[in-house]
Parts: sequence; C-alpha cells; structure tokens
Amino acid sequence: MTMQDARTRDIGWHKSYLTGSRPDLRVPVRQVHLTNGRDVALYDTSGPYTDPTVDTDVRRGLAPLRESWIIGRGDTEEYPGRPVRPEDDGLKDTSPRGGLRNLDAVFPGRPRLPRRGREGAPVTQLGYARRGEITPEMEYVALRENVDPRVVRDEIAAGRAVLPANVNHPEIEPMIIGKRFLVKVNANIGNSAVTSSIKEEVEKMTWATRWGADTVMDLSTGRNIHTTREWVLRNSPVPIGTVPLYQALEKVDGRAEELSWEIYRDTVVEQAEQGVDYMTVHAGVLLRYVPLTARRRTGIVSRGGSIMAAWCLAHHRENFLHENFEELCDILAAYDVTYSLGDGLRPGSIADANDEAQFAELRTLGELNTIAKRHHVQTMIEGPGHVPMHKIKENIDLQQEICEEAPFYTLGPLTTDVAPAYDHITSGIGAAMIAWWGTAMLCYVTPKEHLGLPDRDDVKTGVITYKIAAHAADLAKGHPGAQEWDDALSDARFEFRWEDQFNLALDPDTARAFHDETLPAEPAKTAHFCSMCGPKFCSMKISHDIRRTHGGGDPDAGADGSAAEIEAGMAEKSREFAAAGNRVYLPLAD
Amino acid sequence: MTMQDARTRDIGWHKSYLTGSRPDLRVPVRQVHLTNGRDVALYDTSGPYTDPTVDTDVRRGLAPLRESWIIGRGDTEEYPGRPVRPEDDGLKDTSPRGGLRNLDAVFPGRPRLPRRGREGAPVTQLGYARRGEITPEMEYVALRENVDPRVVRDEIAAGRAVLPANVNHPEIEPMIIGKRFLVKVNANIGNSAVTSSIKEEVEKMTWATRWGADTVMDLSTGRNIHTTREWVLRNSPVPIGTVPLYQALEKVDGRAEELSWEIYRDTVVEQAEQGVDYMTVHAGVLLRYVPLTARRRTGIVSRGGSIMAAWCLAHHRENFLHENFEELCDILAAYDVTYSLGDGLRPGSIADANDEAQFAELRTLGELNTIAKRHHVQTMIEGPGHVPMHKIKENIDLQQEICEEAPFYTLGPLTTDVAPAYDHITSGIGAAMIAWWGTAMLCYVTPKEHLGLPDRDDVKTGVITYKIAAHAADLAKGHPGAQEWDDALSDARFEFRWEDQFNLALDPDTARAFHDETLPAEPAKTAHFCSMCGPKFCSMKISHDIRRTHGGGDPDAGADGSAAEIEAGMAEKSREFAAAGNRVYLPLAD
Repeated sequence: MTMQDARTRDIGWHKSYLTGSRPDLRVPVRQVHLTNGRDVALYDTSGPYTDPTVDTDVRRGLAPLRESWIIGRGDTEEYPGRPVRPEDDGLKDTSPRGGLRNLDAVFPGRPRLPRRGREGAPVTQLGYARRGEITPEMEYVALRENVDPRVVRDEIAAGRAVLPANVNHPEIEPMIIGKRFLVKVNANIGNSAVTSSIKEEVEKMTWATRWGADTVMDLSTGRNIHTTREWVLRNSPVPIGTVPLYQALEKVDGRAEELSWEIYRDTVVEQAEQGVDYMTVHAGVLLRYVPLTARRRTGIVSRGGSIMAAWCLAHHRENFLHENFEELCDILAAYDVTYSLGDGLRPGSIADANDEAQFAELRTLGELNTIAKRHHVQTMIEGPGHVPMHKIKENIDLQQEICEEAPFYTLGPLTTDVAPAYDHITSGIGAAMIAWWGTAMLCYVTPKEHLGLPDRDDVKTGVITYKIAAHAADLAKGHPGAQEWDDALSDARFEFRWEDQFNLALDPDTARAFHDETLPAEPAKTAHFCSMCGPKFCSMKISHDIRRTHGGGDPDAGADGSAAEIEAGMAEKSREFAAAGNRVYLPLAD
Repeated sequence: MTMQDARTRDIGWHKSYLTGSRPDLRVPVRQVHLTNGRDVALYDTSGPYTDPTVDTDVRRGLAPLRESWIIGRGDTEEYPGRPVRPEDDGLKDTSPRGGLRNLDAVFPGRPRLPRRGREGAPVTQLGYARRGEITPEMEYVALRENVDPRVVRDEIAAGRAVLPANVNHPEIEPMIIGKRFLVKVNANIGNSAVTSSIKEEVEKMTWATRWGADTVMDLSTGRNIHTTREWVLRNSPVPIGTVPLYQALEKVDGRAEELSWEIYRDTVVEQAEQGVDYMTVHAGVLLRYVPLTARRRTGIVSRGGSIMAAWCLAHHRENFLHENFEELCDILAAYDVTYSLGDGLRPGSIADANDEAQFAELRTLGELNTIAKRHHVQTMIEGPGHVPMHKIKENIDLQQEICEEAPFYTLGPLTTDVAPAYDHITSGIGAAMIAWWGTAMLCYVTPKEHLGLPDRDDVKTGVITYKIAAHAADLAKGHPGAQEWDDALSDARFEFRWEDQFNLALDPDTARAFHDETLPAEPAKTAHFCSMCGPKFCSMKISHDIRRTHGGGDPDAGADGSAAEIEAGMAEKSREFAAAGNRVYLPLAD
C-alpha cells in the first residue's frame, strides 16, 4: 500500500489514493492535513469529481475502471442487447405532444454493448467468493474498510455481505454492505410525474455522493426513466439501485392490473443491461397477506407494495414476482445484479409497527433469500418504516434470524409520526439504533419526506443526518478505526485548532460558516476561546491551564504523567500556582 | 373539568384551558380542530402569549397566577430583601465607561418584595408532598399530564419527580419533571461577553416556549446578568434555571481563585429572591477528582466544573460548595428552589465517556441528593455529555441506582464528535435513547453547539429536535395518551387531510411551507396524492382503494370489518373490481 501524495496543505485536505496489489486498484480517501502536521484519511464516496487531476465531463461519463477486471475474468460476453423502445421512456404515446421530444437528451457518451455471463451463467461476487476467489473488487473494499480481503470474501460467501457491482456498471468504485463493515447510507433521487429533470437528477447524484452517500437509488417515475437512468449510471461512482416495478407500471400507463411477468422481466433486462447494481423486488407481497393490512391505521404505504397488492387483488392470483422468482434469479445472476428484497408491507405509522402483515412478509423474504442464494444472487433485505424505539430491536433480530444474517437495509425507521418537515431527525434516531444493532445499510430520509420532493439542500441534510447515524453506529459497534475520527476532531477542539475542526467535520462548509457568524474575523480561528462562553468562561481554556499547572510535563504532548505523579505534584503545584499570581487564564494571543 | 370553547375553526386550532377544582386553576392546551369534526388537545408550553384574549406586555410581565396559592398556604412572608448592587449586573467598575449605563433597562413592572419561608423554614413541594398534601401546583400538573393527582404527590414525595416553582416566580404554569411523566425539554438562552442583548434573551425565551421548551435556563455570563434575568423571569410562563456560579465569577472579575462561599451564597440569595426555579450547583467537583481528568482527551468541558476545579487547585482546598452544602440546602428550601446537581466532570468527547472522573462525581452527587432530600429540597441530577450509543444505558442505570431514582436531566448525550453544525442531531439520537431508558428532562443542543451562539432559528431547531426525542421516548415508554397524537396525524395523512397534518405537526409552519414548495396551489391541499409520487404512484391512494374494494364497509369509517369477513369477501370483491373496470386509482378531485 502506498500513499500518493501531492499535498496541498493550504486547502486543508486533498484527494489521495491507496493502491492495492495492481496499479489500477486505487482506493480514494479524503486526506485531511492537520495543522499539527498529522494526517487523517477519511472514507471517500465522492468519486473522481473531487480529484482535480481528473477531467470529468457528464456528457462523456466516468472512466470504466472495473472494465479490465470484468473482461479479465473471461466469464462474460457482449451481446446486441434489447433494443431501446420509446415506451422505455414512458413515451408509448407517439402523438406530437407525447412523442420523442426528449431524444436530444439521449446520453452521448461512448457506445457500448451490454455484457452478461456467458450463456447466461452466474457471474456474481457471491459465486466467486464461494469458490474461494478474492476478486479485485473484494480487494478494493478490503483496502477501503481496512480489513483483511479474506474477511470480505468470507462475509460475501456466507451471504452476510453484498458487493453490488453489475458487470454493466464498470464505472463504480466498489463498496460493501454488511454488518461486519462500516454502516452504509443510500440516498434516493428520481424525477416524478410532477416535477424534476434529467440534469437535476444527475446533479443530485453527484451532490449526494459528495456528502457521503454510498449508494444511490434512482426512483424516477415520470417520463424519461430510461434516459435519466443512463445519465445517472454513466456518471455514478457508487452503485445504483432501482425499483423496476415503477418503470414497468409506466409501460402499462399506470394500470396495475395490466402488469405482467413479461413486462416486468423485460424491464429488469433493460435495466440490467444498463448497469443497475441492485433492484428492489416486491416478491414478498403475497395475496393472502393483503387482507392483513385492511385494518391497519395507514394500510400499505410502500409504492411497490401497494402496486403488487392491487395486482394480486385484481387478478385474485399470486404475486407474479413470487411465482417467477427463480427465473428472475437467473437473470440477475447473469449480470450480478443484487437483490434488495422489498418490504412492501412495511408499517407507515407508529400504530402499524411490527404487525402481522409486516412479519408475515418478512418470513417470505427469508424463504426468497434462500432461493436467491441457491442461484448465487447477492441479496439484502429491506426493512421498515415507522417503528417506535422499543419495537426496533425486534425488527433486526427477527430479520437476522429469518434471513440467515443477510444484510438488512432499512428506511429509518421513523420513531414518531408527529414531526413532518423533520423526518430526517425522527428517522435518524431510529436509523442509528437499528444500525448499532446490525443493520448494514440505511436508506436516508430527507426533511421533505411526506411533504414534497427533496431539493439540493434536502438531499444534503438527509445524507449528513444519515452519515451521523451510520458513524454513531460504527462507534457503538466498536468498528476498528471508527473512533480515530472522533478523537482527531476532539483533539483539535480541545487544542483550539479551529481549521482542523472544520476540515475534519462531516460538513466543513457549514461548521465554518456557523463559527464565522458569531466571530467572523480571521484571528478568531486561532483564538483560544470561542463565542459561546467568551474568554473568561472557556472551560477548555481553564482545563488546559489545569493540565499545564497540575498535570505535569508539556501540556501540548497530551497527558503523559501517571495519576500518581500528578497527585504527588499537586501540593507543590498549588504553591506554584499561587506564586504565579493565581492566573487561571492564559494571556490571549490576540 | 370543563372545556372553554371559543372555537375558531378557521385557523385550525385555538388556545383552550382545562379547569381544575378551583376557577383559578386553568391548564392551557393547544386544541387542534380537525376537518373531520374531531378535536385533539396537545400539551402547551407557550404561555399566555398564544392566547388572543390575554393582553401581554413584556414591560409589565405576566400575571402572577400562583400568587394566591402561595399566599394562601400561609407559610411564607415578604421581606425587604437583599439590595440590588451594581456588581449584580457586572458593573463593579463604576467609571463613566463601565458604570450604570444600563439603568434604563431596569424592569419597569409592578414593584414587589421577595418572599421566603417564615423564619427561613422549608416551603417546598417536596415538603408538602411528604405531608400528604396535594397542592394546587400538583393538581395543575396532574391535569396537564392526565394522571391522578395522588400519583404526582407520591412521585414528588419519593424524590422521583420535581415540580420547580420558586415562591418568587408566581408567573409560571406549573410543570413536573420525573420519569413517570412526559419527558421534558430545556432550552438554554443567555447573553455572553461577546454578544447579545436583554431584548434578544426575552425573545429567545418566549420563542423557545412557543415551540415547546418546558423550562429555560438563563446562562448569561456578560454584563446585565441581574437585569436580564429579571426581565426573563417576569415574562416566563415556564420555570427558569440558572448556574449561579457564572454570575458569582463575574462579581470577582473572572478570577476563579477569588471566589468564595460568601460571594456564592450572596448570589444564590439574589437569584432566589428574583424567582429562579432551579439552580445548577457544581458541588460534586471534588479536589481529589480533578487529577482524574488530567489524562482525558478533552479535560473538563463544563464551565462550572472547570471553574470549581481551578478554585480547588488554586487553594488546594475542598470545593466550597461541597463544604457548605447543608447551608445551601436551607437557603434553597426557604424559596423552593430546586437543585440541579451539576455534572462538572461530564465527558466532552467520545473518548472520555463513562470514565473514572465522571462516575466518581456521580457517586458524590448521590450523597448530596440524600442530604438535599433531608432538607426537603427538590433535587434532580445532571448528566452527560458526549457518550457513544453503547455506553448510554450505563449512565441512566447508574444514576438511577446511585441517586435513588431522582430525576435525571441530561445534555444530549452526543453520540459522535464528528459533526459540528449538526450536534442537535448527534445529540438528539442520544437524547431519545436515554429518555426512553428513564431520563426525565433533556437539555437541548442547537446546531451552533461548539461553534457559536444560537440565534432564533437555532433555538427553534434545537427545541423541535428535542421535542421529537422526548416524544419518541414517551411513545417507547408507553406513556398513556402519547400515541394518540401520532395516530391522529397518521389518520390525517392516510386520509389526505393536509390541513390537519399541518395543524397537528410539531412545526405546522415548516410542514406547510415544505408542502407548498412543490405543490403550492390551494387545491393541492385537498388532493388525494402528493408531490413525491404523483397521482399514479400514490401508495396511500392505492391502499384506500384496496380497503374500499376489499376491506368491506365504508372506507372513511376506518377498518371495522373483521379479518374473517374481509377474507370471505375477497373472491367476490375481486370480481366486482374487474367488473368496475379494474380502476385502482380514484378520480382526482381537481
């Protein structure tokens, strides 16, 4: 492992890379340069966009850094692929008004053919891990997580972790989702029938990853679904997830009862060829579970769940996703698309948490998990929803038991229903707790949840809130190395290294701006106090003085003296303290 | 109990009162009028300011609603009181520049003499409760919490709850702090040496209580401390807490070693005569504990703790607050000032959580709690700080054990150090958890924590975040009635009663504004979908349709059919559904 090191200390940090066993295996880190001469390397999801030495262009897309690894394995082949059809963009209506008006939006980047396992054979990281192989992707995430590559391989082989990496999405920087690893955060983007554009969605994706999103789900439901997704995929350094059902429904003009396995399968192939890394599949919404929701306070609140429930009732037949699950497995395995088995019956209110409908579906998801693994498909399980704190642990415990420790991927949960406009917080509380107890990835919730579409600020707030929840969980789980970040920031705080505090913060910009609101002058950033208490009342300042006067040794070297030495020196130090004029405050530098 | 009922349905809610056994015992509630004709009464901390029938004027102060109760007990007397001195406002320097320049700021309201227990005898709610009395204050909080007044009395008598109510603060609407009751939230205000004015502090107080602060601590440290506090007290409908040490330090020009028991005692009397309801006292910072902090990552971060530590070291003598604790008890008992025994050695970083210094002090606080109770002084115990999630429960469990279940009053705790500018969230997570496990009151943290002084927006954000944490804990504790609020809001959400959702929200203004950002038109507030998914993808809409078609009965009447009936009707309903054109979406109203 070497550290590429074009230091730019004046800006406080730079993009650096850890290099693995081959030169094209370079793991990005945010290298923060502290004013005390030390460095802290932080996990970095922002992709090449934050590397000034890389020339990015969204019209060209990111470099396909995994391409040689995928080709090198020799188990995939290019093929002509499914032709793109107008209805893929919701343009089934070919009238002048509804026609191909967005053709100019077609992604202009390098031409490519889709790739899949030769003769449709599985080409999944799960399959490789089971054969004992450590792929470049596995080595990459091992470097990224600072763990042994064998741990990565073994967790994937056991189904306790997934490494979502479609062979048609070579642009991603591999990442892993599993309870033995850092807790991950997903950000949702997506246009809707009401508003939003392709450009906005690509910007939301890069914006979300800049602030720490580990994966992004494109939940577009309006027009231009196919084209929007192409732009997002070609420009995304993180795995992209989707809910294929949304697009399938657009293809039947929103009439759930007209959905069919054939239309759905076609949509899955379409998306797999584009490079979608994981797909939410609502195969656990069984016909017999739907009546269980009839007496709920808020019925079915999952879009996918309600669509499948409507289909089941309309036809009075079993969910076609469940009926055709094995075939679906084979399709996903040929592209290494990871399952995210959707919780279509998740509770939408505190009153409905942990009810019969929810847990009945979970048991079905457990059965589907076993089937998916048989087909070598990587699988994670989605979780609720709205759950009061005392009912959260049952969710993760039951999921881990029923689903053989497959990664749990939860939305929140929201711990109360009474705070619309603050549901990033109501859910951030539940997210931190459930992640501590074992959830592997958290789906963010923005302040606009229940109210409207998130804008740029909402995306950032949602991501930051969930990074807090994830990191709080990493600390509580005792993840190796997690506390180093807190310690570095706390040291900076205690030593009044304001710039270091800002640069180490999850959101340096806002931390700096808040500080400057009260004490804007540049000298304030080196002041040995801050605006909250002013110089006379600064406890840290007094505390330093105590250490300097009574702690023994050089105060800047940290507290090295033994407690006994300190005790022994106290009486003498007390006399010195008085002799020196009883000054507990240091003269200010400015 | 009667409901005063001058309905103003057009604004969605009005201030109402629950009347107790005497006409002057009127408990305010926020009465929300739902569009379905029902009402929901919410706990209301906003004081007379939100009652359009009350004429408030900050220059006059609030009406002394408890005055007749206090006088009626016949155990207090008025007396001339300690004369106010220039140094009370930090104006010891009488030069033209530093002199009485703020005299025009003196509170102009009704003249009053301070009051105390006759011959200095205890006049505390604890004393009354122990004698078996149910005071009007106890009845008031019983109505407010919807519990039996005997429960209130018994919890206070056992020391498991406090009802902070200085006899010199008759303006307050009584409230109770204890684990059997709703979790409370404190908001800190206070000017500092660097910025802020009297007017701003009074506004912050009314603003904080408007959004739900149950108590307010005035932590002013600059000039005009006495006068600022007078304005705040005379206008506050909630109990006011202080840290007398801050003012005492101002009186010795910030030189900790010049502090003395006499100066401190004088300050406590000064504040008790003004009406401060609870005081943070750092009597647990013992000389022998200070060296335990020398090897900490962030030393002592409590201002009061660091001041007392500096004093102890300077004199090499035991903390004068500890030495004179019994005398202090007698003073507090004569005014019914409640102790908030301060955690001067709380951890200021994840690294220092649950260390020897912290728990040594906690054990001392336990001893002091026993002494205070002997003197009939109501007592709560302050808690940390910065604590990772897995170490939180030990804090509350140990505190409850050591302090005989005295109310725990915690700051956060912050669950990670890495997110300055978002510490309302890092701490809101810890606050919700520790409150679930038994903390009675939470001290809020604003986004400006560690960075600057909170402004109006920060105060609101801090209060709302902590109200979320408190309510999430009420739900998790199964507090009777807590879930009704969530249920009412979830019903409104499921039935697309947008205005009801807004009016029931913790922050109606922001919820409404967020909704209007995406769908501003008035008809959108009655639309049977929202901007997130648009009409085609609305799961709630589909869910309603499922209930209507398959759930049996009137969909607007809720889910009344038995599961068996629903099951039985399904095959038939399925045929009806197809016959009706398989329409899963209702025609839109607009």
